[in-house]
Amino acid sequence: MAKKSFPLSKVYGLLEPGPVVMVTTARKERPNIMTMSWYTMMDFEPPIVGCVISNRNYSFDILKATRECVINIPTVELAEKVVGVGNTSGSDTDKFETFGLTPIAASEVTAPLIGDCYANLECRVVDTRMVNKYNFFVLEVLKAWIDPSIKEPRTIHHRGNGAFTVAGETIKLPSKMK
Amino acid sequence: MAKKSFPLSKVYGLLEPGPVVMVTTARKERPNIMTMSWYTMMDFEPPIVGCVISNRNYSFDILKATRECVINIPTVELAEKVVGVGNTSGSDTDKFETFGLTPIAASEVTAPLIGDCYANLECRVVDTRMVNKYNFFVLEVLKAWIDPSIKEPRTIHHRGNGAFTVAGETIKLPSKMK
Repeated sequence: MAKKSFPLSKVYGLLEPGPVVMVTTARKERPNIMTMSWYTMMDFEPPIVGCVISNRNYSFDILKATRECVINIPTVELAEKVVGVGNTSGSDTDKFETFGLTPIAASEVTAPLIGDCYANLECRVVDTRMVNKYNFFVLEVLKAWIDPSIKEPRTIHHRGNGAFTVAGETIKLPSKMK
Repeated sequence: MAKKSFPLSKVYGLLEPGPVVMVTTARKERPNIMTMSWYTMMDFEPPIVGCVISNRNYSFDILKATRECVINIPTVELAEKVVGVGNTSGSDTDKFETFGLTPIAASEVTAPLIGDCYANLECRVVDTRMVNKYNFFVLEVLKAWIDPSIKEPRTIHHRGNGAFTVAGETIKLPSKMK
């Protein structure tokens, strides 16, 4: 799918609903993927995202060393792959190959985008103060991409133990909230 | 609705999907409510939650001073009230009265539960290291309540500017993820 550049000022609207995402990292040309749900927006522009990446994950050391990653947002069509990525470790699995996902070169970071995801956020680590205690990384989104053909993304939202809620209808209410 | 005590070990499953929540605080017996979407789980048990509460919000000073709040999770039936709460300020509005919401005494904190919400998490601030730079508070959930009659909560997820996705169908996949 052809990706288009997406305005950084609108990134919050992609993450604020809380979809499960896949985080890509890369070290020595070898990319890895992990599944993540523990993150939050922290500022609008530049978009700042805080996320917990456990030190039990293979991606933890890579993110700490390279200070770069990509947040990729899948839709429900990829649900089985998302769970597969979450159930395996990059220590012994090439996840792009195992799950048939498509790496695409990013523009600002070494980690690849996952082409199969409808949106991709290239990120740099900007604050590691809470990594030791909480495994909590603060990221700045440097560049965002989207598949413009997907207007109502059917994202998946993890409720624990492999149960996911799929995004349903959209409602619009008069709001002064950004 | 009658609330039941909910196990702390399962709290992550309520917040991980990313629903919009309403945060209650109280100072000098006067309760306030704000709408919030910028939060993340940070640990399973005891449940640790990180959240951004802007210093432009009336609740910011109260939370900083009292170090207590309740996270209340509404379903779509409350959507108009949720937006109303987000569009007004506690500096000049009694939100419980204005929006016809029901305060219920909490067991561990001074701030009230919102009885109309299907789940309520009583919280204490445990880390303020990132408050100055990011308005980011780290909370520990002390006590959780749920309406046990609601099995598939139709939570709402903010996509920006008053657009919300409503939680749709649930899918279950074989997962080793907690």
